[in-house]
Amino acid sequence: MKRINALRKTAFTENGFDGYLIFNSANLLYFLGFPGTTALLIPADGESTVYVYGVNYEQAKAEGKGFRVELVKGDENLMAKIAKQAQDYKVKKLAVDALGVESWRALAQAFPRKNTLEVNNNFVQALRRVKDKEEIELMRKAGELTSAGMNAAYEAVKPGAKEYEVAAEIEYAMRKRGSGGTAFETIVASGACSAFPHGGCTAREIRQGDLVVVDIGATYQYYCSDMTRTFVAGKASAKQKRIYNVVRTAQENAFKTIKANVPVSDVDAAARQVIEAAGYGEFFVHRLGHGVGLEVHEPPTLSQTSKDALAAGNVVTDEPGIYLPGFGGVRIEDTVLVQKNGAEKLTVGPYSLGKE
Amino acid sequence: MKRINALRKTAFTENGFDGYLIFNSANLLYFLGFPGTTALLIPADGESTVYVYGVNYEQAKAEGKGFRVELVKGDENLMAKIAKQAQDYKVKKLAVDALGVESWRALAQAFPRKNTLEVNNNFVQALRRVKDKEEIELMRKAGELTSAGMNAAYEAVKPGAKEYEVAAEIEYAMRKRGSGGTAFETIVASGACSAFPHGGCTAREIRQGDLVVVDIGATYQYYCSDMTRTFVAGKASAKQKRIYNVVRTAQENAFKTIKANVPVSDVDAAARQVIEAAGYGEFFVHRLGHGVGLEVHEPPTLSQTSKDALAAGNVVTDEPGIYLPGFGGVRIEDTVLVQKNGAEKLTVGPYSLGKE
Repeated sequence: MKRINALRKTAFTENGFDGYLIFNSANLLYFLGFPGTTALLIPADGESTVYVYGVNYEQAKAEGKGFRVELVKGDENLMAKIAKQAQDYKVKKLAVDALGVESWRALAQAFPRKNTLEVNNNFVQALRRVKDKEEIELMRKAGELTSAGMNAAYEAVKPGAKEYEVAAEIEYAMRKRGSGGTAFETIVASGACSAFPHGGCTAREIRQGDLVVVDIGATYQYYCSDMTRTFVAGKASAKQKRIYNVVRTAQENAFKTIKANVPVSDVDAAARQVIEAAGYGEFFVHRLGHGVGLEVHEPPTLSQTSKDALAAGNVVTDEPGIYLPGFGGVRIEDTVLVQKNGAEKLTVGPYSLGKE
Repeated sequence: MKRINALRKTAFTENGFDGYLIFNSANLLYFLGFPGTTALLIPADGESTVYVYGVNYEQAKAEGKGFRVELVKGDENLMAKIAKQAQDYKVKKLAVDALGVESWRALAQAFPRKNTLEVNNNFVQALRRVKDKEEIELMRKAGELTSAGMNAAYEAVKPGAKEYEVAAEIEYAMRKRGSGGTAFETIVASGACSAFPHGGCTAREIRQGDLVVVDIGATYQYYCSDMTRTFVAGKASAKQKRIYNVVRTAQENAFKTIKANVPVSDVDAAARQVIEAAGYGEFFVHRLGHGVGLEVHEPPTLSQTSKDALAAGNVVTDEPGIYLPGFGGVRIEDTVLVQKNGAEKLTVGPYSLGKE
C-alpha cells in the first residue's frame, strides 16, 4: 500500500494521471507481493482492482488483502472489462506500464476517446530502482544464497566435469538453502566458449587448463542476485593470470567509485580505463553493469553513454570482462548496493582463479 | 532452413506476405537454434538477417551459419535499421510476430507508408504446434529428465521436509542428467496450499497427512516438458484416495480420446465429465491442458470452448485437477504426443499417492 501511495504521489498528484494500469509481471509483484495475477488497475482513491484468471483466483483472494480481486473468465474480453472498471473509477487519464500492440489496440477501442491513454513505465521504474529496507533485506539474502552457489562452483569445476554437472551442484547448493530458483539460466562456459559472454551451459567436458566462466543468480522472495567468477581448471597460464588480474583491477576500481550521485558513465569508465590501458579495450564488449531487483536486468544501466547518476538504494552489478575469441574469456561480477557514501557488496566470494 | 522455407510457403506464397519479422524469443530459437538474438528478418529470397547486440555478437557469428549476422550497437535505432534492411530486401508486405506498442510505433514510423505492416503470429504458430522428428526426439528426452525428477520427488516428499528441499532434490536429479534448467518454477505445494493450482514452493514444512502437488518440467535443448503428480505425506485418508481416483480416472479417460483430428473440446469433456459425475465439477477450475514445445504454454489449448482439433505432432498436456479450498488439491499431469491413431506419453511415472 505504501508503494501504491508513492506511485499516486508522483504519477497522479505531480503529473496529472488519475489511473495506472499494470501488466508487467515484475511490476505486479512489486505492488502485490504475490504471483499469478494478470493486471492491476490503480485508481486515484480507494481499493485497486486485481484481475486474475480462474486458475489463480482462490490464491489471489487469500493473499490479496486490501485489493478488489476480480475473476476473469477464459472467454471474457479483459480489455473491455478493465475499460469498464476505469470508467467506474472515473479515470480520465490512464497510464499503462507496458503492453503488446494487439492488446493495446483492444484497450484503446474499449476506452472512451475523450479520455487519455498513455504508455508510461517511468513512474513505476523510478520507484523500483530505489530499493526500500524490506527489499534490501531480501536482496541481501539472495546474495548470500548466490555466494553459497559460487562456493559449490569453486569445488565442482575440475577437469573431466561436464558443464551441466557443475550447474547441478551450484543450483542444488542454492536451492537447498532456500532459493526460489535461478534468476536466469546458469552459465558455466568453458574453454573457447568462455569467450562468449552468454556462453550457456552444455554437455561439454571441462579440460585441463580451460578458463571457466560461472555466472549465476539465486532468487529469494522473487528478488534476484547476479554473480560471476572465472576459474581455471587446473593450473592457470601466465596469460590467463594476466587477463584475470586486469579484469579484477578494473572491477575493484569501478567498485571504489560507487556511491550516491556519481554518474554511471564514470563508474563504467573507471573499469574501462584499466582494461584499455592494458590493451584489451576492444575485447570488453558490453556495458559495465545493470540494475538488479525483481528482474535480473532492470534500470539503471551502467554504460558509457547513459546520462544517469546513481542513487542510494540502487542495486547494480559491477562486471567487467575481457573476451578473446578462440582463447577464452574472464568476467568477474558482484551485485552491489549503492549507499550514500559508498557501496556494499551483496555477493561475496574469493577472487581466485581456482585451487591451483 | 527447412523451417524458414515452410514459413515462406504458407505466409509468402499462399498468403501474400513478402517479409516476416521475428521478435518472440521462442520463435527466434525455432528458426535459429541458438539463443541471444534480438530479431530476425526473413525476406522472400536469399539470406535472412539476424540482429544481435555486441554482447552476443561473436557467438551468433559462430553459430549463425547461413544467416547474415548484423551487429546492433547500444545506442542504435534498431527499428530504423530493420526498416532500412526491409527496403533493401524490397519488402512490401511485412508480418511481425509480436511487439510491444512502443516498439511497434517506432517500426511503423521508420517503415514506408505505402507498404503494409501487420501483426501476425499465426503462420509461425501453425508451424510450431506440429513438431517435426527432431523436435519430438528432444521433447522425448525432456520428458525422460522430468520423469527422473518425479522419481526424486517420490523419494523426497515426507513429513518434516520443507517444500523447497523437495524442489532441490527434484531439480538436482534433472540437472545432473543433463537438463538445461526448469521449464517453469517448480511447484511443491503442500497442505491447504495444494488447493491452489499454482501454489508455488515455500519454506513450509510438510506435515503428516498433507496432500502435496508436485508440478515440474525439465528442458532439453530449449524444449520443455510438464508433469504433475500428487502425493500424500504418510498415510492417505479415504477422502484423499477418493478424490485422487476421480482425477486419475478423468486423466486416463481423456488420454484415451487423444489422437489426430479429435476436437480438443472432446478431450477436455472426457475428463470433465468424470469429475462432474463425481460431484466435483466446480472444483476443476482450469482447462484440461495446453500445448508444450519451446514454451511450456503454447497452442493448442485443450479447453471446453476452443474450436481447435488435434493434429499428429502436437504435444499437449493432460492435467485434470480437483481443488478443495481449505482441504487441498489433486492434479495429475502428463505431456503427451498426439499421433495419427493414438497418443504417446512423454512423461512416465507411477500413478501413486506415495509409499504408504
